[in-house]
Amino acid sequence: MEKGPCLKDVAREAGVHVSTVSRALHPDTARLLSAEVVARIRAIAARMGYCPNASAATLRTQRSGAVAMVVPDLSHPSFPDILRGAQWVLGQAGLICVVYSVEHDFATTEVILREIRARQFDGAIIATAQVDDPFLAALVPSGLPVVAVNAAHPDCPSVLPDDDTGIALALTHLRGLGHRRIAHLAGPAPTMSGRVRRQAFLAQGGEADLVETASAYTRQGAHQACRALLERAGPGQRGALTAIVAANDLLALGCLDVLRERGLSCPDDVSLSGVLDLPHMDLVAPALTTIHVDSLALGQDAALLLMRRLDGEPARPQTLRQPVTLVARQSTASPRRDGAA
Amino acid sequence: MEKGPCLKDVAREAGVHVSTVSRALHPDTARLLSAEVVARIRAIAARMGYCPNASAATLRTQRSGAVAMVVPDLSHPSFPDILRGAQWVLGQAGLICVVYSVEHDFATTEVILREIRARQFDGAIIATAQVDDPFLAALVPSGLPVVAVNAAHPDCPSVLPDDDTGIALALTHLRGLGHRRIAHLAGPAPTMSGRVRRQAFLAQGGEADLVETASAYTRQGAHQACRALLERAGPGQRGALTAIVAANDLLALGCLDVLRERGLSCPDDVSLSGVLDLPHMDLVAPALTTIHVDSLALGQDAALLLMRRLDGEPARPQTLRQPVTLVARQSTASPRRDGAA
Repeated sequence: MEKGPCLKDVAREAGVHVSTVSRALHPDTARLLSAEVVARIRAIAARMGYCPNASAATLRTQRSGAVAMVVPDLSHPSFPDILRGAQWVLGQAGLICVVYSVEHDFATTEVILREIRARQFDGAIIATAQVDDPFLAALVPSGLPVVAVNAAHPDCPSVLPDDDTGIALALTHLRGLGHRRIAHLAGPAPTMSGRVRRQAFLAQGGEADLVETASAYTRQGAHQACRALLERAGPGQRGALTAIVAANDLLALGCLDVLRERGLSCPDDVSLSGVLDLPHMDLVAPALTTIHVDSLALGQDAALLLMRRLDGEPARPQTLRQPVTLVARQSTASPRRDGAA
Repeated sequence: MEKGPCLKDVAREAGVHVSTVSRALHPDTARLLSAEVVARIRAIAARMGYCPNASAATLRTQRSGAVAMVVPDLSHPSFPDILRGAQWVLGQAGLICVVYSVEHDFATTEVILREIRARQFDGAIIATAQVDDPFLAALVPSGLPVVAVNAAHPDCPSVLPDDDTGIALALTHLRGLGHRRIAHLAGPAPTMSGRVRRQAFLAQGGEADLVETASAYTRQGAHQACRALLERAGPGQRGALTAIVAANDLLALGCLDVLRERGLSCPDDVSLSGVLDLPHMDLVAPALTTIHVDSLALGQDAALLLMRRLDGEPARPQTLRQPVTLVARQSTASPRRDGAA
């Protein structure tokens, strides 16, 4: 790559010492100079296209101006919004957000951890959302400022949707419609939200014999679990289920597939609700009743908690719970009179 | 962060000189040693949790082991698959993929460019997909190995879906059903795919007076353009349109909103097709007819082209066109007899 202007070139142009330019360009040392000098030097550096060699700068100052964000799978439609929310807040503070996507391949965990350690980020937002998350386990004790999204660690602040309230809203809505036998299609066991929503379902009177667990947080990941529910307690059987609370919208879509495959109608035979309120769930047939989670706000709050750590606040195992709301659409209705309720 | 073992510690443990450890751990120099020595030293380094200081290593070797990928907006459902495809190929080669998302805010272009230059990546995949893309314009002349996705630059290899064929398939399908007045809801003017698909529509006999352009590649971004089409040539008017070819699926969903708002039925009043075949388009009411684009393969091919550059092949303005297929579903049907066809 061609070599741009160096610190010395900017100093010559500005008529000041190299060390003054260096101070002016770094957020930690700029306050040692007058605001006018800082503004003038930064304007000259920008005009000349000066670009600090980040590798050298990182070695010297131990600050990179960048935050690492680790997400499990960008094809899951809620992570882009979490990322956008975090980027928005970090961007205001002049920090850039660098994304590592683990996808489904957790063999890459070690590689990504090595990268994050080696590149000396200022902090990290871990949204991999696993129970006993390996990124949190490795990074929190290292002293790197870390915030967890949809996950928890005893020594780390975290942001989560208020899942207890979400599941309560879904159950209250369905019970209000007259449903008595309500099933839960739970999220995968290794995920934090899968565990929390399942516990909430059971704590709020959900029946343990009407819980099946998805193999993945995908439409396909719900198929086997939904078939198992219908085989055990599907319409036509004694004490049949009349509604399913799915742990998220993708699992609800998978349930719709299985209901169609069995010739069952939603909501006539089985009512169905999701969690997240992903884009376009209003266009699905039938439009999906769900719990709205503000993923953008989850990302924003995670970044705000991280900014506090970067500003020198000590780590606190603080948990922010994002409020949720019920969005009632066409996939839930009163159970049929001839149902087994 | 706590300090891990250094090169010297690994050398002591292995009973070899520091320079031997350094050679063994770097892909460019490992071939100077026997395979056995390399394997033994790497195993010791891994067991000790040795982690090279990437900043120091970058200054020394000018290789980072990481590739930057720039995407416009991760909430657009095709970018996660492009990313996954690229990650899969790069991961096989031991390269990590670091993602910068520009979102809609192109003010951050300069910040991200500075980051990419400063961190000395081995290469970059630019999927921002703009006409006259600013990332390509800045990075290609710098000599950094770059590959474009959904974009073009005279000195840079690129991968694109075969949009000419895609639009031809949609038009042939609709004409075969009996449609004569077919409109195009074009993608935003600054996007490469918006321009290419619009040109393809016109080149293949589409009528220029039946083209309107979306304000963004989103469901909402199609609303105004679709209303304009219907006001000018909606059902009931002389020479009314009977079908809309939307430049992608999100725009097609926006058209569905507007058709509902006007009390029009799809496909009875207006047939509708998209491009991309995004997840869950089969569950929309009516299930969307669309052109299937293999986004995963786009990402894989981009990474493969980049690997060739990293292996020393000179830059060539080579263009790979991904094959596309028609997926006919319920949103397209023959026009009504009483229509204006």
